[in-house]
Amino acid sequence: MRTVRVAVVGVGNLGRRFLGLLGDKERLLASKYGLAIRVVGVADSGGTAIAASDKGFEVDRVVRLKEQGRSVAELPGGIEGGDAGSLVCDVALDVLCEATPVCFEQGAEPAVSILRAALMRGIHVVTPNKGPIVVAGIELAELARSHGAQLRFDGTVAGGLPALYVGMRDLRGAVVRRILAVPNLATGYILDLLAAGASWEEACRDANENGVLEGDGSWDLDGWDAAAKLVILARAVLGAGADVTLADVLRTGVRGIGAKQVRDAQVRGGVLRLLATAEEDDDPNRSWHLMVEPTVLKRGHPLAGLGRTEMGVVFETDIYGTITLKIDEPTPLPSAATMLRDILDIYESP
Amino acid sequence: MRTVRVAVVGVGNLGRRFLGLLGDKERLLASKYGLAIRVVGVADSGGTAIAASDKGFEVDRVVRLKEQGRSVAELPGGIEGGDAGSLVCDVALDVLCEATPVCFEQGAEPAVSILRAALMRGIHVVTPNKGPIVVAGIELAELARSHGAQLRFDGTVAGGLPALYVGMRDLRGAVVRRILAVPNLATGYILDLLAAGASWEEACRDANENGVLEGDGSWDLDGWDAAAKLVILARAVLGAGADVTLADVLRTGVRGIGAKQVRDAQVRGGVLRLLATAEEDDDPNRSWHLMVEPTVLKRGHPLAGLGRTEMGVVFETDIYGTITLKIDEPTPLPSAATMLRDILDIYESP
Repeated sequence: MRTVRVAVVGVGNLGRRFLGLLGDKERLLASKYGLAIRVVGVADSGGTAIAASDKGFEVDRVVRLKEQGRSVAELPGGIEGGDAGSLVCDVALDVLCEATPVCFEQGAEPAVSILRAALMRGIHVVTPNKGPIVVAGIELAELARSHGAQLRFDGTVAGGLPALYVGMRDLRGAVVRRILAVPNLATGYILDLLAAGASWEEACRDANENGVLEGDGSWDLDGWDAAAKLVILARAVLGAGADVTLADVLRTGVRGIGAKQVRDAQVRGGVLRLLATAEEDDDPNRSWHLMVEPTVLKRGHPLAGLGRTEMGVVFETDIYGTITLKIDEPTPLPSAATMLRDILDIYESP
Repeated sequence: MRTVRVAVVGVGNLGRRFLGLLGDKERLLASKYGLAIRVVGVADSGGTAIAASDKGFEVDRVVRLKEQGRSVAELPGGIEGGDAGSLVCDVALDVLCEATPVCFEQGAEPAVSILRAALMRGIHVVTPNKGPIVVAGIELAELARSHGAQLRFDGTVAGGLPALYVGMRDLRGAVVRRILAVPNLATGYILDLLAAGASWEEACRDANENGVLEGDGSWDLDGWDAAAKLVILARAVLGAGADVTLADVLRTGVRGIGAKQVRDAQVRGGVLRLLATAEEDDDPNRSWHLMVEPTVLKRGHPLAGLGRTEMGVVFETDIYGTITLKIDEPTPLPSAATMLRDILDIYESP
């Protein structure tokens, strides 16, 4: 039995579900993979807590605490206002699980600094957080390599869909000519409500009330989320370098789309989705053509028929045909579970 | 640069394309993966040939020869009537690429014997051939383990779709509750022709003329091909053991389906496909419920809208949602390319 000591930074929607998973899967992880994953540190916006021993926290207890809206600082060993970065410095860790909310302002800090600190200590990092990967992914990957650590971020692209693993591993030997993706759930949800006759305001209110849209929603509605995911895909699968950034994505969001346009799409036999596309550019001055825009997916399109809780990615390749992956993800559980997938991949790879 | 010495047994539809690929991809394999794959032995139904040196054969020459309908026995070093098994014994090999036609009679021999001989010598095996995997897959996997060799057969399930890699690797940590698959192209092709108004005889003739159906077609039409693929999926992904065999699949083929049934399916808003399903059985006397039968895939079904050259696999999981993979494979190239994927996976896995 191998013990893996992890710290979980960010215990919100994803972090909390991930902790719950570790409890639910404890026996399976032991019997099938010979792994005992121990949560020895946790951090949320209220503070930090460090477990008294290598046995770690009782994860169900942490989950219950968070469900009551309280902070991990209230746990034994808790430090109110404690800094998440200190977990990396003060605790003997094997893996840092970073699941703080996406933030692109201030250079995706403090996430980037925490990841950097972990990798420099040879601590593996798993994260579904797009922020640090878009802002500093190439630098962080290089840091991981030079310190013998693994950096995994399978959950950054399309929730629980293993789009990065398939693109990077199962398409080896191929040239990927084009990537198409519908990687954002909130816009699909809203576009479907519009198609069903809702007004823009009604659709947004519904999405807000059901937790599909957060805050003012501009991150989703203006296509930033899809663009960020596209940048990560393009770098990982097409080999686009650090020079491909969010600013390189030609981006049109879904704001201003009327019910009429959506219904016209239906009449034409398709659904409207915010489609992200990446391919090598014909223009010799630019290497990559990255675009996000509302697109009618007609019958015959590989992503036609995507449901309200579905995301998808298409790889057009030279030798493996056209491969389409999609996921139906009615709750954030699959996104949270990508941290488990990533950990198992680190310890299970032959 | 790492040299990988391979022998290719079976130089038909898949083997020939695989050899062509090795030529086309030589530079990419060297620059990106540091691999020089050398074909040091080949075998077809006419005989064998062993290359004069470790540099191997010029693959394009072998491809041209085969395109002319000739045997590899005519190559320098060729032996008319030579036995494929001797390649494994007489040639220093790293990987055996087995691509002979599927054959389930006589215990899938001689394929099983050749694979066994290779694995016992510690030679890795890659094969898209369902025969030996269905008949002796568990024994061969055990043999591979005990001799430090790798046995890869990603191409046995749905052509170029990495269904096994995703199911075995990217779903780690999950319980897969059910697998749905449309893994056979020929039946979809015929069912679509019926839907377009062709008679059964016309559809079969068309499929024969276009190389979609081989021989009397019973392998495809009676659902054996889909059943074999389902058995491989169930063993690899659900953990069903060697006790799950072809005989355990409740199997209904597509023979006898009339145009009316197919059109009715369309009227009901769906397409008819030969669907393969595997799940744990409620019946305590049986562990697994495996079924192949013509099924209407209606709007909303994860595999609805599959085109004539598409195959797909759905994994219903406890923690990663429902994940659907599909491939559009208009030629056998992706199936052939799985041997390259498998080789790269052997040498590239961290």
